[in-house]
Amino acid sequence: MTNKKKYIGEVEESKAGNSALKVNQGIEQPPQVNPSFRKYKRVKRILTISDYVNGILAGNVNVLSQAITLVESRLPEHQDLAQQIIEKCLSLGKKSVRLGITGVPGVGKSTFIEALGMEVVNKGHKLAVLAVDPSSERSGGSILGDKTRMEELSVQKNAFIRPSPSAGSLGGVARKTRESIVLCEAAGYDTIFIETVGVGQSETAVHSMVDFFLLLMLSGAGDELQGIKRGIMEMADAIAITKADGNNVQKAKLAQAQYQNALHLFPQTESKWTPIVLTCSSLEKTGIGEIWETIKNYETHARENGFFEKNRLRQSKYWLFEALNAALKERFYDDSLVKTELKKLEIEIENDKISSFVAASKLLDIYFKKK
Amino acid sequence: MTNKKKYIGEVEESKAGNSALKVNQGIEQPPQVNPSFRKYKRVKRILTISDYVNGILAGNVNVLSQAITLVESRLPEHQDLAQQIIEKCLSLGKKSVRLGITGVPGVGKSTFIEALGMEVVNKGHKLAVLAVDPSSERSGGSILGDKTRMEELSVQKNAFIRPSPSAGSLGGVARKTRESIVLCEAAGYDTIFIETVGVGQSETAVHSMVDFFLLLMLSGAGDELQGIKRGIMEMADAIAITKADGNNVQKAKLAQAQYQNALHLFPQTESKWTPIVLTCSSLEKTGIGEIWETIKNYETHARENGFFEKNRLRQSKYWLFEALNAALKERFYDDSLVKTELKKLEIEIENDKISSFVAASKLLDIYFKKK
Repeated sequence: MTNKKKYIGEVEESKAGNSALKVNQGIEQPPQVNPSFRKYKRVKRILTISDYVNGILAGNVNVLSQAITLVESRLPEHQDLAQQIIEKCLSLGKKSVRLGITGVPGVGKSTFIEALGMEVVNKGHKLAVLAVDPSSERSGGSILGDKTRMEELSVQKNAFIRPSPSAGSLGGVARKTRESIVLCEAAGYDTIFIETVGVGQSETAVHSMVDFFLLLMLSGAGDELQGIKRGIMEMADAIAITKADGNNVQKAKLAQAQYQNALHLFPQTESKWTPIVLTCSSLEKTGIGEIWETIKNYETHARENGFFEKNRLRQSKYWLFEALNAALKERFYDDSLVKTELKKLEIEIENDKISSFVAASKLLDIYFKKK
Repeated sequence: MTNKKKYIGEVEESKAGNSALKVNQGIEQPPQVNPSFRKYKRVKRILTISDYVNGILAGNVNVLSQAITLVESRLPEHQDLAQQIIEKCLSLGKKSVRLGITGVPGVGKSTFIEALGMEVVNKGHKLAVLAVDPSSERSGGSILGDKTRMEELSVQKNAFIRPSPSAGSLGGVARKTRESIVLCEAAGYDTIFIETVGVGQSETAVHSMVDFFLLLMLSGAGDELQGIKRGIMEMADAIAITKADGNNVQKAKLAQAQYQNALHLFPQTESKWTPIVLTCSSLEKTGIGEIWETIKNYETHARENGFFEKNRLRQSKYWLFEALNAALKERFYDDSLVKTELKKLEIEIENDKISSFVAASKLLDIYFKKK
């Protein structure tokens, strides 16, 4: 393992070949994309698209990591390369189950992911752990901060843990994570965990890229809950009450019953799956197997009634329209004239000088006349 | 009362003056906007903007109705006129409380609105009842279909009941309703009910234009619930279990306890208000007063902690951005080249030939290069 900074695609001439790519295995460093890459002496050999694709298909972790780094890069040439790799990988690796895991800091997310991850790996699966959390929203409990707690999982041959991209908007990070899923699946990972901190906007994004959404909760139904955004509970396919160990077991069982009752009052899900509440202890490794079984039961259920594939297809369309709409908005709101006028109009709205709709049409007139 | 078709702004020459405007009072006909208006012989006198504004400020129901009809019209000249009227009315009538009421067909929404409406009117308030439901989404239980059940309320001098615009997209209808609120408030209505059928997309729109969101529910927690969209329960400031009469009282009380428990498990609302579950009978007129009291308590609470005004301001901004984003999207997706290419790209996505993001950037390139 080395901490030396590496540039993307760089291969030392003397050790050319996949085995010599110097990207750390297991837990990785945050991606180091050097924006002044071109200023430096060109390295001798850059991987070609086929190098990447073949490396990924062969399950080479180093190549996979480098490809994800390309996905995360903001340089146009890296983006081009990344898109071509993704396109080649797209029709491969469709057999995965994608699991979204969320919960506020303090719920024990990292230790839970380690425990469930070990369960999955021990069952013979190949597991990739990704994250969706724009750096600005990050707080404790993220993969990177807790890497010491994933010690056991991170050294597993069949586990690939990748921290969240270190910067970017939610939309950008979500896109990168979704594209990374494609690469991981092509590399043979049949189980993908996507972690998110349950306090921001990222849950909807994660919910729109996973098959199963797991919400981790603490047993106390009091102040701890305030961090969870309203609406997240209704997205959950299962709730796991964590830290059900020691003298916390009774409290956890009580919380389980309460949440189960609450979920029964919710309208039925489109998948026709009844959300389940479970308890577990990552420390004592209890309840972890049941959670994995629940996820597999869901998979069987959703594949049999056709929801699984239908949902995947809908998610693909969702991201198409998300990307389109985001680009349209970005172009508009980044326009300097729009910026200036928008500020003025917002003040007029605050003072009841203009209605929201009239303000909108004024701004649109300004924008489209300019073109 | 006359059912004769009237054109907007028409005043019979012989009876010119506000009192002679032939718009039905109380329950109205659906707006009759004649698209071929210009083909007909011009009427002798059209109301000016000041006629409209003065009429509205004087609380003249006929003028108010005509102004709303202008708001609902698709003719550009009506829209222009409507916008000018709204702009003049904007800074007036800010003292209202806006209440959103939703519930699936069968929950007894119309009889409830009549019962609560009578309570409000009897307390000396002026009440306007509007609706947000695009016609395509409408099913039973809408104001128009149930007008016979609002017999008592509809003849009240201080009640103004306006059915949902008879056509249009959700965005369009929501906009029209929001603009109608401004006119109703300027006309002195201090309480506004906005009704919506709890099965579509319209709840978010209604939630974004009201101060208080009331969800009507039936006591059985079974099949009846399936119509309610997930996520709506978490928007509610109060849930009212309807039809708590006869031998249904016990069941309603049980449902009340269950929902109250469930709501306690939800994260705290931003308004710091704890949602309340109540029971009522529109038939026996029980529990209706308590619901109104709850709404007034909420108002006091939210005004005191500043949330009321903050939320209103945020809603104005929300509709500004909604209108902007909707217009940007409409322009893009209505483009004929975009339409053709989008169809092709969607098929490619379905067949895993292209990723959602690459498809999006291809389409954007096509659109913006054409310009």
